[in-house]
Amino acid sequence: MIRDFAALSWPDVAGDLSRNIPAILPVGAIEQHGAHLPLTVDRDLAEGVARAIAERTGAFLLPACGYGETWSSEAFPGTLSISPETLRAMIQDIGRGLIGMGIPALITLNGHFGNSGPIALAARTLLSEGLPVLHLDYPGLEPLAGKICTSKPAGPGFYHADEVETSMMLALRPEAVQMDRATPEYPDFPPTFGQEPFQLREISESGVFGDPRAATAEKGRMLIHGIADAAVPLIDAFLTRHGLTTTQG
Amino acid sequence: MIRDFAALSWPDVAGDLSRNIPAILPVGAIEQHGAHLPLTVDRDLAEGVARAIAERTGAFLLPACGYGETWSSEAFPGTLSISPETLRAMIQDIGRGLIGMGIPALITLNGHFGNSGPIALAARTLLSEGLPVLHLDYPGLEPLAGKICTSKPAGPGFYHADEVETSMMLALRPEAVQMDRATPEYPDFPPTFGQEPFQLREISESGVFGDPRAATAEKGRMLIHGIADAAVPLIDAFLTRHGLTTTQG
Amino acid sequence: MIRDFAALSWPDVAGDLSRNIPAILPVGAIEQHGAHLPLTVDRDLAEGVARAIAERTGAFLLPACGYGETWSSEAFPGTLSISPETLRAMIQDIGRGLIGMGIPALITLNGHFGNSGPIALAARTLLSEGLPVLHLDYPGLEPLAGKICTSKPAGPGFYHADEVETSMMLALRPEAVQMDRATPEYPDFPPTFGQEPFQLREISESGVFGDPRAATAEKGRMLIHGIADAAVPLIDAFLTRHGLTTTQG
Amino acid sequence: MIRDFAALSWPDVAGDLSRNIPAILPVGAIEQHGAHLPLTVDRDLAEGVARAIAERTGAFLLPACGYGETWSSEAFPGTLSISPETLRAMIQDIGRGLIGMGIPALITLNGHFGNSGPIALAARTLLSEGLPVLHLDYPGLEPLAGKICTSKPAGPGFYHADEVETSMMLALRPEAVQMDRATPEYPDFPPTFGQEPFQLREISESGVFGDPRAATAEKGRMLIHGIADAAVPLIDAFLTRHGLTTTQG
Amino acid sequence: MIRDFAALSWPDVAGDLSRNIPAILPVGAIEQHGAHLPLTVDRDLAEGVARAIAERTGAFLLPACGYGETWSSEAFPGTLSISPETLRAMIQDIGRGLIGMGIPALITLNGHFGNSGPIALAARTLLSEGLPVLHLDYPGLEPLAGKICTSKPAGPGFYHADEVETSMMLALRPEAVQMDRATPEYPDFPPTFGQEPFQLREISESGVFGDPRAATAEKGRMLIHGIADAAVPLIDAFLTRHGLTTTQG
Amino acid sequence: MIRDFAALSWPDVAGDLSRNIPAILPVGAIEQHGAHLPLTVDRDLAEGVARAIAERTGAFLLPACGYGETWSSEAFPGTLSISPETLRAMIQDIGRGLIGMGIPALITLNGHFGNSGPIALAARTLLSEGLPVLHLDYPGLEPLAGKICTSKPAGPGFYHADEVETSMMLALRPEAVQMDRATPEYPDFPPTFGQEPFQLREISESGVFGDPRAATAEKGRMLIHGIADAAVPLIDAFLTRHGLTTTQG
Repeated sequence: MIRDFAALSWPDVAGDLSRNIPAILPVGAIEQHGAHLPLTVDRDLAEGVARAIAERTGAFLLPACGYGETWSSEAFPGTLSISPETLRAMIQDIGRGLIGMGIPALITLNGHFGNSGPIALAARTLLSEGLPVLHLDYPGLEPLAGKICTSKPAGPGFYHADEVETSMMLALRPEAVQMDRATPEYPDFPPTFGQEPFQLREISESGVFGDPRAATAEKGRMLIHGIADAAVPLIDAFLTRHGLTTTQG
Repeated sequence: MIRDFAALSWPDVAGDLSRNIPAILPVGAIEQHGAHLPLTVDRDLAEGVARAIAERTGAFLLPACGYGETWSSEAFPGTLSISPETLRAMIQDIGRGLIGMGIPALITLNGHFGNSGPIALAARTLLSEGLPVLHLDYPGLEPLAGKICTSKPAGPGFYHADEVETSMMLALRPEAVQMDRATPEYPDFPPTFGQEPFQLREISESGVFGDPRAATAEKGRMLIHGIADAAVPLIDAFLTRHGLTTTQG
Repeated sequence: MIRDFAALSWPDVAGDLSRNIPAILPVGAIEQHGAHLPLTVDRDLAEGVARAIAERTGAFLLPACGYGETWSSEAFPGTLSISPETLRAMIQDIGRGLIGMGIPALITLNGHFGNSGPIALAARTLLSEGLPVLHLDYPGLEPLAGKICTSKPAGPGFYHADEVETSMMLALRPEAVQMDRATPEYPDFPPTFGQEPFQLREISESGVFGDPRAATAEKGRMLIHGIADAAVPLIDAFLTRHGLTTTQG
Repeated sequence: MIRDFAALSWPDVAGDLSRNIPAILPVGAIEQHGAHLPLTVDRDLAEGVARAIAERTGAFLLPACGYGETWSSEAFPGTLSISPETLRAMIQDIGRGLIGMGIPALITLNGHFGNSGPIALAARTLLSEGLPVLHLDYPGLEPLAGKICTSKPAGPGFYHADEVETSMMLALRPEAVQMDRATPEYPDFPPTFGQEPFQLREISESGVFGDPRAATAEKGRMLIHGIADAAVPLIDAFLTRHGLTTTQG
Repeated sequence: MIRDFAALSWPDVAGDLSRNIPAILPVGAIEQHGAHLPLTVDRDLAEGVARAIAERTGAFLLPACGYGETWSSEAFPGTLSISPETLRAMIQDIGRGLIGMGIPALITLNGHFGNSGPIALAARTLLSEGLPVLHLDYPGLEPLAGKICTSKPAGPGFYHADEVETSMMLALRPEAVQMDRATPEYPDFPPTFGQEPFQLREISESGVFGDPRAATAEKGRMLIHGIADAAVPLIDAFLTRHGLTTTQG
Repeated sequence: MIRDFAALSWPDVAGDLSRNIPAILPVGAIEQHGAHLPLTVDRDLAEGVARAIAERTGAFLLPACGYGETWSSEAFPGTLSISPETLRAMIQDIGRGLIGMGIPALITLNGHFGNSGPIALAARTLLSEGLPVLHLDYPGLEPLAGKICTSKPAGPGFYHADEVETSMMLALRPEAVQMDRATPEYPDFPPTFGQEPFQLREISESGVFGDPRAATAEKGRMLIHGIADAAVPLIDAFLTRHGLTTTQG
């Protein structure tokens, strides 16, 4: 059973409040992911991974923040970016609600690189208000991808609409994947990449970074479960560091 | 077919941009809805109604803003409110993204009363930046509810976890409804209600406002389709007023 | 005698601070009111009604916030709107000053519809800082107007430069009313009215909503006193709810 | 005749818009002024002086900003300060409204020292948006006071509840002055005065700075008219500098 | 020895924290200073004077805020102004850091007129958070300049790129002064100067206000030491007022 | 010759404006750097490296932003952090000044990790306002350090008060280094490091991360020049990308 806010009523939540259970918040993005994937990939994957972590830890699974900070992809139609300030405010508001109801810790599970900065700042603010926040991207993904996937990434730690993300989507929402449209593209990064504001469309035709063709649902499941497995000890360390021993029913 | 961002890729969106198609954004909330309904009711219903409207109009269906402004219910655990400023910023950021990609108009479909103010202010800002915004709650709901439902509402236009919302949830997500827990409650509103800040828990034991017991999925379907039908002429009037003639494929 | 800040010195205020007396703040607007009324109607009426309430309750009568949020009338010259943020900040700053000096509660008496949202948000903020705020518009106006006035309103609860407001101005500032210029106008509201940002000038030639011709000072006095009478039990309920028993000298 | 927004209707304003007429905005404060003067002195005097200037120049007389920035007097009950940000926002919002309706310049007439900084910043912002702003305090007051009044000021340019302000109030609102309570006080300013944040109550028992006992209505009239006379050439220079030649009817 | 943050390590600071030592923060500006002086004059002088004060008082000498609010000089190339909000935020952030580490008071030493308002507001905020702030410009400069310098200032208290500032630069950074380019200029101030936003370049060809030709390093040293000597009793009065008796090692 | 704002007068800057010369802004921090280094290391190094780049490129060398975002070190006395918002505002204000005077591009040279996020956001804002911004940390440092230094870093890309920074300080400000106090420390990073807000003092006694003992001025010179050499082709690529061909005199 998962403690999923989409299934729980308020008395369900109230009944578990004495157990020191943390909450996990998927943070996604609405952003282009090539021609073969829908715009909600980062939200869908963050939800899927967060769910797998909630299964392992008993954490409350919160509804996703679906929108994220995707400025760099705005030149691709369909991308809908919120500002870093708005994203940070969202996380802080949600965290304050958790404090208000007595949930003792928050884990954010982030599916999009551009969200990292705002989440980290929100975490600082929330910590100062009494809520420890662990902000995870996909822990352990780099070694996992190296083991499970056969194509090489477009750059170190850069997985976007490639074998990794496509496999995870095949595992979670296969009906939304059009493998017949999947094509590889390895963009040529300019020397100042990462050191000046940059629209990715300048270097990408398709929006794919890497090669999605070898993606399979099975690889996706292995990635999702591998990431969730890697998250568990981090969460344990985090909770222990803050003196929180979860008492599950 | 629905133009659903959760199914479309960016070339799909790009291919339709010349057609003057508006976008519809469901705006929900995470808020207590009694013991028989999950915390995501307002998000789920806003999505369901927005989907029905998208079916009728061909509008792009955007991913929902799941979180809303639910200050008045914060005393019930499980409620997670974002501030009016954050909600307004979300809508504005999304609207700016639509402007950027060339979508000519936005329709918001709001499932929660507390969101109305911030959405209306965002609409003003976006209009001044070139994006007309029609902000709908559930158009036509009051007469529809009067016709379809047998229980009386807790107050004029006040439908919360009652026969109306429970029926709509039974139509959309029956697995998330626990009818055996459904109980009626008609709170006693104090004379200053609506004229001072007020936590609803002060006047409600259960979080239900009205009587959900007569809810059925069939009533829910009638309500959803009735609302969507009522929305269509409003959207037509709105688009016409702004000189937008949709060209659908 | 009225405890009017325009007549009291600081030792006068200081001398009454132990008596748990609330303050009442008129909130007006600078906005077109047809050809027969001056731009300050909403401020003048809010002051007049607030004064009548102060007479009945002994509340401190604060100087009016003369400017209000009148975005919808900006297309009429003479309208001077402040933003909702500015209005909210004004109310909050004033409320903090009241907290600082030890006044235990605030009643806002609002004469303009557009101010309601910002005032309600300020009320929430102030309550969280320790100051209960009752935010009244014109309590009881709708039934009173139905009884006292002969013309029908332009819409439900919509009184603007009509028999109601003109009568109240004739009672308070007859020298500022030019009845010879008073003409009726019943605008045709478009179907999306209230659901998209809208400049009222699009549907109004004169700026009058309704028919001011039957206005009289006597009707105005009855309206003002009727509203003030309706406010008293609300204020009593409000103060009681917050444990404040006023001790008048 | 004065072009007073409290007497004009919107067609009156509209009819004069082609004449390049500036607007004058009194900016006051709600602040202690000893035992013999009401809390609204700064608002009342700013209005009175602005009115005298409007008489001489034909400028539109705007409703006063009654509240001002009076942090330094907050330790005296009855003082109600708004923040510098709020005051600046008020002036900016009003200025934007003037731009919107086509009024070509703004003159602020400020009755309270603490308002000067926020007004000057608002003036900068408005100038960058196309509205020249002349921000006057009481021009020529220091030589006038030296000539007309017999008591010495509490400090250079420091007139508060003294012979100057009391005389002006006697000229404008004699019914609000209680001369029998008027007592002199010459506070001892500490060496760091003006160089650190400072509550004036620390150095003043009565709230009077100077000696109000010799005040008369006649002196007040001479001061008000003297200030207004001194303002006229400044306004002429200001309008000329910005290429604005007023065409009065 | 000076307690200069540019020379101290963190254990050095930590070791002195029990001694109630205040910190002094030079606040400068990057602004045109004629053809004979570099753009950093206000920063350089503020640092030099602050250093002389730190020598006399044992205060921690903080690194300068080099950038200041120089809007009025922006029409001269090389001027780089920060907004008043940014400057205020800088001072507040630094003050909060001092509170965090246990330094009990802050003295700001400001070298540029435009900074005064933002610093004074920051001081208020910091005082409310527990940090007393004394905000000095150049105390005693006016009489000192009258005694030491032979040229007359461009206006009362107006010293910019003139004999005063040039002398001080000759004392502190002679290599950065080009006396062969020093020329006098006495601008003609328009009647509305100081009462409307104004770019100084409109009235100045050279950027010099006054006559720098008689400047000498010796005069500069006398000015700097005279200012520092005048600051000491102010600082003593300030610390005493706040119950802070410095214990120097 | 270097185009250093600390040596140039405004006519010097004005005379070069037609040459398309970019500006370089050092961004530092006030932060603990062990017992052997002063609190200004990051500012001093950023200035030194920026100066070396200005020598190579002819760029205008701007005065440093001395203060930076050092939240993570705030538990060490002497650290003075400004907020990310303040830092971002500083960079934006400075960039706007450059736009105003006609300087066509900005290069930031950042000496402290915590500044990266705010600088990148400022760069985005400034680009949207017309100013391309290249935000460099120490380009090429990692391979250079590997070649020049003998001690191993505390973590990948983590150089703080170690052989790298100490060597650079010995090259730039040897009088401020106390090598007799230099001691190594290799902290043990917890598993959640980088994934939750974290005060570095929890894992560090000395504030040193690595081993500074082998530092020499010669190594420092090699590092500084190596970084500056690595920056030149990045700057060339950046300027070329934005169509800016510098014309040096």
